Amino acid sequence: MSDLALETGLLDRALRRVTSLWRDMAERVVGGEAESIAEQMRACLDGRGGEVSARNRAARLARDYLALDAAGRVGFLRDLAGFDSDEAGLDYAIDRLAKAVGPAERAAAKTRLRRALEPPRSRLLTQFTAIPDGMKFLVELRAELLQAAGKDALLQALETDLKGLLASWFDVGFLELRRIDWHSPAALLEKLVRYEAVHRIRTWRDLKNRLDSDRRCYAFFHPRMPEEPLIFVEVALVKGMADSVQRLLDEKAPVLDPGQADTAIFYSINNCQRGLDGISFGNFLIKRVVSLLQEELKNIRSFATLSPIPGFGRWLTAQLADGDPALIEEEQAAALRQLLPASLALPAPQAGAGEGAGQGAGERTGGPPMAETPVQTLARVLARRGWQREEAAARILEPLLLRACARYLLQESAKGRARRARDPVAHFHLSNGARVERLNWKGDVSEKGLKESFGLMVNYLYDPARIEEYHEEYVGEGRRPASAALRKLARSG
Amino acid sequence: MSDLALETGLLDRALRRVTSLWRDMAERVVGGEAESIAEQMRACLDGRGGEVSARNRAARLARDYLALDAAGRVGFLRDLAGFDSDEAGLDYAIDRLAKAVGPAERAAAKTRLRRALEPPRSRLLTQFTAIPDGMKFLVELRAELLQAAGKDALLQALETDLKGLLASWFDVGFLELRRIDWHSPAALLEKLVRYEAVHRIRTWRDLKNRLDSDRRCYAFFHPRMPEEPLIFVEVALVKGMADSVQRLLDEKAPVLDPGQADTAIFYSINNCQRGLDGISFGNFLIKRVVSLLQEELKNIRSFATLSPIPGFGRWLTAQLADGDPALIEEEQAAALRQLLPASLALPAPQAGAGEGAGQGAGERTGGPPMAETPVQTLARVLARRGWQREEAAARILEPLLLRACARYLLQESAKGRARRARDPVAHFHLSNGARVERLNWKGDVSEKGLKESFGLMVNYLYDPARIEEYHEEYVGEGRRPASAALRKLARSG
Amino acid sequence: MSDLALETGLLDRALRRVTSLWRDMAERVVGGEAESIAEQMRACLDGRGGEVSARNRAARLARDYLALDAAGRVGFLRDLAGFDSDEAGLDYAIDRLAKAVGPAERAAAKTRLRRALEPPRSRLLTQFTAIPDGMKFLVELRAELLQAAGKDALLQALETDLKGLLASWFDVGFLELRRIDWHSPAALLEKLVRYEAVHRIRTWRDLKNRLDSDRRCYAFFHPRMPEEPLIFVEVALVKGMADSVQRLLDEKAPVLDPGQADTAIFYSINNCQRGLDGISFGNFLIKRVVSLLQEELKNIRSFATLSPIPGFGRWLTAQLADGDPALIEEEQAAALRQLLPASLALPAPQAGAGEGAGQGAGERTGGPPMAETPVQTLARVLARRGWQREEAAARILEPLLLRACARYLLQESAKGRARRARDPVAHFHLSNGARVERLNWKGDVSEKGLKESFGLMVNYLYDPARIEEYHEEYVGEGRRPASAALRKLARSG
Amino acid sequence: MSDLALETGLLDRALRRVTSLWRDMAERVVGGEAESIAEQMRACLDGRGGEVSARNRAARLARDYLALDAAGRVGFLRDLAGFDSDEAGLDYAIDRLAKAVGPAERAAAKTRLRRALEPPRSRLLTQFTAIPDGMKFLVELRAELLQAAGKDALLQALETDLKGLLASWFDVGFLELRRIDWHSPAALLEKLVRYEAVHRIRTWRDLKNRLDSDRRCYAFFHPRMPEEPLIFVEVALVKGMADSVQRLLDEKAPVLDPGQADTAIFYSINNCQRGLDGISFGNFLIKRVVSLLQEELKNIRSFATLSPIPGFGRWLTAQLADGDPALIEEEQAAALRQLLPASLALPAPQAGAGEGAGQGAGERTGGPPMAETPVQTLARVLARRGWQREEAAARILEPLLLRACARYLLQESAKGRARRARDPVAHFHLSNGARVERLNWKGDVSEKGLKESFGLMVNYLYDPARIEEYHEEYVGEGRRPASAALRKLARSG
Repeated sequence: MSDLALETGLLDRALRRVTSLWRDMAERVVGGEAESIAEQMRACLDGRGGEVSARNRAARLARDYLALDAAGRVGFLRDLAGFDSDEAGLDYAIDRLAKAVGPAERAAAKTRLRRALEPPRSRLLTQFTAIPDGMKFLVELRAELLQAAGKDALLQALETDLKGLLASWFDVGFLELRRIDWHSPAALLEKLVRYEAVHRIRTWRDLKNRLDSDRRCYAFFHPRMPEEPLIFVEVALVKGMADSVQRLLDEKAPVLDPGQADTAIFYSINNCQRGLDGISFGNFLIKRVVSLLQEELKNIRSFATLSPIPGFGRWLTAQLADGDPALIEEEQAAALRQLLPASLALPAPQAGAGEGAGQGAGERTGGPPMAETPVQTLARVLARRGWQREEAAARILEPLLLRACARYLLQESAKGRARRARDPVAHFHLSNGARVERLNWKGDVSEKGLKESFGLMVNYLYDPARIEEYHEEYVGEGRRPASAALRKLARSG
Repeated sequence: MSDLALETGLLDRALRRVTSLWRDMAERVVGGEAESIAEQMRACLDGRGGEVSARNRAARLARDYLALDAAGRVGFLRDLAGFDSDEAGLDYAIDRLAKAVGPAERAAAKTRLRRALEPPRSRLLTQFTAIPDGMKFLVELRAELLQAAGKDALLQALETDLKGLLASWFDVGFLELRRIDWHSPAALLEKLVRYEAVHRIRTWRDLKNRLDSDRRCYAFFHPRMPEEPLIFVEVALVKGMADSVQRLLDEKAPVLDPGQADTAIFYSINNCQRGLDGISFGNFLIKRVVSLLQEELKNIRSFATLSPIPGFGRWLTAQLADGDPALIEEEQAAALRQLLPASLALPAPQAGAGEGAGQGAGERTGGPPMAETPVQTLARVLARRGWQREEAAARILEPLLLRACARYLLQESAKGRARRARDPVAHFHLSNGARVERLNWKGDVSEKGLKESFGLMVNYLYDPARIEEYHEEYVGEGRRPASAALRKLARSG
Repeated sequence: MSDLALETGLLDRALRRVTSLWRDMAERVVGGEAESIAEQMRACLDGRGGEVSARNRAARLARDYLALDAAGRVGFLRDLAGFDSDEAGLDYAIDRLAKAVGPAERAAAKTRLRRALEPPRSRLLTQFTAIPDGMKFLVELRAELLQAAGKDALLQALETDLKGLLASWFDVGFLELRRIDWHSPAALLEKLVRYEAVHRIRTWRDLKNRLDSDRRCYAFFHPRMPEEPLIFVEVALVKGMADSVQRLLDEKAPVLDPGQADTAIFYSINNCQRGLDGISFGNFLIKRVVSLLQEELKNIRSFATLSPIPGFGRWLTAQLADGDPALIEEEQAAALRQLLPASLALPAPQAGAGEGAGQGAGERTGGPPMAETPVQTLARVLARRGWQREEAAARILEPLLLRACARYLLQESAKGRARRARDPVAHFHLSNGARVERLNWKGDVSEKGLKESFGLMVNYLYDPARIEEYHEEYVGEGRRPASAALRKLARSG
Repeated sequence: MSDLALETGLLDRALRRVTSLWRDMAERVVGGEAESIAEQMRACLDGRGGEVSARNRAARLARDYLALDAAGRVGFLRDLAGFDSDEAGLDYAIDRLAKAVGPAERAAAKTRLRRALEPPRSRLLTQFTAIPDGMKFLVELRAELLQAAGKDALLQALETDLKGLLASWFDVGFLELRRIDWHSPAALLEKLVRYEAVHRIRTWRDLKNRLDSDRRCYAFFHPRMPEEPLIFVEVALVKGMADSVQRLLDEKAPVLDPGQADTAIFYSINNCQRGLDGISFGNFLIKRVVSLLQEELKNIRSFATLSPIPGFGRWLTAQLADGDPALIEEEQAAALRQLLPASLALPAPQAGAGEGAGQGAGERTGGPPMAETPVQTLARVLARRGWQREEAAARILEPLLLRACARYLLQESAKGRARRARDPVAHFHLSNGARVERLNWKGDVSEKGLKESFGLMVNYLYDPARIEEYHEEYVGEGRRPASAALRKLARSG
């Protein structure tokens, strides 16, 4: 419950500026000061006093919700969830459907059943859309609900209803694509800083560097939440396909005239609203931006991402622990053993990659055991901090890791879903119609990058002419489009 | 079917400018040139080729629809309606609900049933929102559907689904209230002219007179149809409650400084989109405008309408035909007979009011019959063209008609609904929380006004402090709030 | 003075909406209620009470000016003009300049002299720019001044100062080019209707036809008069060079897809502000619009006008009266005489072209005189109403008139200025760097067109690649660029 | 000249983004590639090739100027300055004026002389207004010119002309007042950070704190430099008159609801454009903002500044050095001597205030000299770092310094101008119509504040009802309006 308390704070902050509006509206509600929350909800549903009153009541409910502590909010949400569809009415409607004869009767009966299934709580939720910043309120409400629901069937049902409503209101047809740049309001840019989670924005200078001249940023907005980005993508206009995120984000790198660029690199995509989890618009965003850039900059020929491979580190570590013999030959292991003698190799087991590797290596007590297998050697070496800075070892490791990664991306599947790529980012882009294009050694040498994927990054290519074909190949046929080089690499060894 | 053909023209015109966009998108659909409409719909639903493809397919469907003639369109709509929910899946979901035990299981089963009831055609309709001007397309589509459905159960079901979707998207929470004035785009004002049906706008000068200085106009807009008013209201800022629409619309009347006005008169409300019939926002509009004006012009103290009484003429004519003795005393009838001798009184039976009256009077052959009842005399006099210009007669008729009208508004009910005012405009304003304030003799002396309500108009008063109370009185308790004077008038005689 | 009274009305109307602002400001001026106009001006100049007071005083002066009648305004203007530079100071400054030695001293002395020459009335005029709509006030003031000045040296001097100030403020660098279309505010379009003087806009439908789809309109605006166009040009996008203004303005003509057009025709240019007479921006306007259209519509290859020839009718009539033998051969005259026998030919002397012609023909008493010269015949024929509808005669007249017009445009010069084309419109476009491209028979068959130029119109071609060259040719060398065909035509006969 | 080189950098940066536009325009100039700068200027002045050509030539000159180094730019400016008025023409015009008889002739002669005095370089400068960002170019040009001119009579004359032009274009009537807040473009806020010189903005958080909720910021803009603030003022909405700038700027201070504030404090005014030095709009700014706030926030009753006293430290130090006996009594000096014994008192002479004080104290070799005068003691104490943190001493010093400061503000005059307050900030606000209201001990305890004015700050009160009166009192009569308390303080002792 402590997490909810935290979130509670978030909701309050996001909505602080409207609370005075809500307060004013709440004060216009005539009577009912002593009503319980549930009674207020009832009055709101009944539309007592007309539509404007109902709206004022909704504002009062919103104001009261904000004033509650975490436990109080759960109570509020349970009250709300309690406005479920009427059981008797439902039985009756099912009965009528069973007895309906002919298409006209059946159609009418279905409509009646649909209505009987519509829980009053959905109408109540809808009422909030009419108050100032009501849409933001509902989005934040769902964020809290997702945390609070747990295994509570009642709250889960409310969450499902709210998700359905939001999915309908946030249909991509209602979203607006806008460019964000250095001329955007500071209040909006501040949010970008808060929401960027892939490659953190450290300073306002870093931020400016991502918005100016040879950088672009686009976001989806909803007309009812005009100052809140829903999802945004950051784009770099470069020459040739980018292979290092550190170089992309270097503030001191020379600026390229966008008219000289030939490639657009999508290097960061971020969902901003937790309350919209599971309602996707990312797939549209990239393709809309590709269209926009094609229109504006005739010189851009290629569109690709520079993406993390978030599951690779964990997967490889598990493979190492399992002793997968395909990962390394005895010859390469011997060379590594020579380069990194036992005394140095004893890992101070580290978080993440190192952890699993340490377990795989088994004994933590001393140097390499007598009969270390090649895989054990590999695990031991990779568990060392800073291996990638040791040139000779890195030269041996590079082809091994690239090959392992190619297999991971192209051959490994999600648990129980053979057609789905195991890596979630790969799955996202392949579903969108991209293909796996190129692996980049030392693509992200930040702490996070090394831990997550041994520093590897990948480019997914969006070829406007083949997006549909690739989409069908992956979604329809379960194959994974990739460049010839990558396919060869995955088959090698 | 000929009416549909007419409407077809309307749809085409409204959407002409986007068809080139749709054409471009349609041309991007790969393959499927020979597909039937139904096959295209299937492909669109399956999301074949990804979301962007689905969007292009929707554009192609929209383009194809526009290219069809009336019969073709009905075929298209029936194809679309055919994508109904799966019967087997529905039976299964009902069965599961019957067997569900405990709240969690029941909640899950209800969710499943809800989904099983959701017809694929609804998803298809939703797809259109993502194409340019897609919302307008759907609104126009419903307008055509309302005409085409007739008794066709399949089309009716489609219409019901579409209405549900539109009701959700056009929830008042998503609408924007905007002022329209002489600085608004000409393209928007042109639409105002087209949509104004209460008091026709005859010239651009007449239009300007309704938008400038002491006049206001407000409309609701939807963010996805930014150039299409949904409903608009025209307001006059005046001194004292207005009693004549001709005076209000007089272009030569001196202009009042809005800072001097004490009353805002709502003299015309118009729904603009036939495709949104039955989805109401009028109730919100007036009250939002009242709030706006209260804020802006502190000097405005009263808010009232100057409204037509569209059903009065027809009702009174029927009463006359029925010989309702409460309408007139013998003494008054005698005075009328004296003023209007038989030779002049013989009516050339005219359309509307005259028609019924003529029938009531019975014999059309000569002067007043020997033993004409008072009601017959009244009917005969009212059937004459121009009675209201004969001062002496008018002086006798005025109190009679005012009293009859007061009764009509305050005591007559809609067929089979005792609590509902018979007059539709009265019902609208009473539901909104207004009260019947004052009747106006010679309120509308246009042809239409005389025919519809013998020239009478009525003011409904919106008292911001009592809107809720009046709303409850009418909606909750079935009583009709009115000024003391009107109540007295209705009881008199 | 009656004309000024008329203009007075114009000024009032244009500025009515700000007078309440001026009144409020005027009321904030402390004291001085009994001051004369001249005393107020003095206080305003002295900046008594600070800058904001000075501004309020300026508002009071403006308000007072509007309240004056025509005679009062002339008095006001003379008071204002009286704030001339100080004679003693001027003499002193001239003296100092005479005595100044060395560049530094001379520069300082010149600066001093410049200041001594600056009349206080200029500073007073400048003060008006700080009040709401002050710029519009000054522009209207100059319009009135131009009318009132006459031979009054004092008012002329004021007018010269005001013109200088306006010229500096309305430098083309400060103007904004904006497109006007059917989405522009109605209040702006209303002004277009008022200011269009070349081809009158008759209805709002006519207006819409000039702004939509294959028509464009562009205007210059000043940031301090944001709702007042200064000059605007109307453009038609067509296939091939337009040859008839009636066809261009035909509301029923089919609409061309702008993407299919190859030619932009500038068919109407209008100056809107009489108070800016003599301050030209027309030369910039056309060239800026050419650039804009080149950018936006790659398919447009040619840019040309369809222009009136306002001086041709008057010139030709004079030539006919003078009996210029080059206008017609005996043979052609004989043919005309045969086609139009004496009885018909007797002209009811009409206004304009006919008038002069009638005088040329001499006797007005009967049929053609015995020994009518060819020129007399021509004059007599052209003086007839409707000659152009008589096919056979028109066939004879067409080549004669075209040749005469070619000579008029290419060879006739303004009085006393040999290098300047006699026709003012020709001079305008030639100065701008256009060339005379083509004459159009029946180019403008309206009453006005027939009277002004016997229905002829001309295309001036703006060839973006040769504008500078043509400009130099005309302005620098005094030659008139023209198409080969026109040059040949002018030399023929 | 090294400073100019520095500024050169500034100019380049400000204009970098337009140089590509200028380059494109420059390339459209036909011929003349080998022309010298002066020849280009000549061609530009002659309007060779028409107005558009002239504009392109101006762009080329601007581009070329940017490409020059410091010495080259001085050459360019001297070339430009060389286009002076024609001497012969000037003599002739003076001669004609001398001979002119009668008002008409004299008026005409003066106009002629004015024109003869207008140097062609002014017309050339005006040409730059027509190129993109040309106004910014001219403003930056003047900034460079101010630095480069020195004693060069030619450059000074050019600078005078340019100042005159800018003064005319930047007349307050043409400026737009805009609010700047946290929703303003980041690019604009970045400039605020750069231009704020009174109280430096240290972080974006500091910046946000100055723009949000109970803070306001307003700036003047020119329509031709839309993204460049000219001058801006920062306002705090507080309860009671603010007495400490550190408290005002404290980011952690609780936020006040603007509806609760009763006072608006103007705590920082900054001119942004060095190239507009000497062209003042600050006087208008404060008064316009007062009006705006009066309108918007009815609860604000007082308008005052919290201002630095930049000249006080220097003045007092000089008085101390002069041994002004009015500053301190023997009794107070004795108390100070006791509190701060010799050993501690020996000042490490510091920059600024300390410097003069050290000189005043004379001998720097040891403790307090035998026969130290009271003033010497005071000087010695004030020269110590940190005296204000020693409570007991501060208690003695506070009334002495406040009295001295009251005298400084109310009685001391600028050199040679008896009616003008010696302190420049005091002069600015008094000229504007403010009065000296209150001195604040520890008003600014930053390093800068202590050095500049021993930590004192002052409130100037803007009483809307008395601004004119105070303005006249100071400007007209040479008296300095002040609160009763301050006047009493200045007279005391």
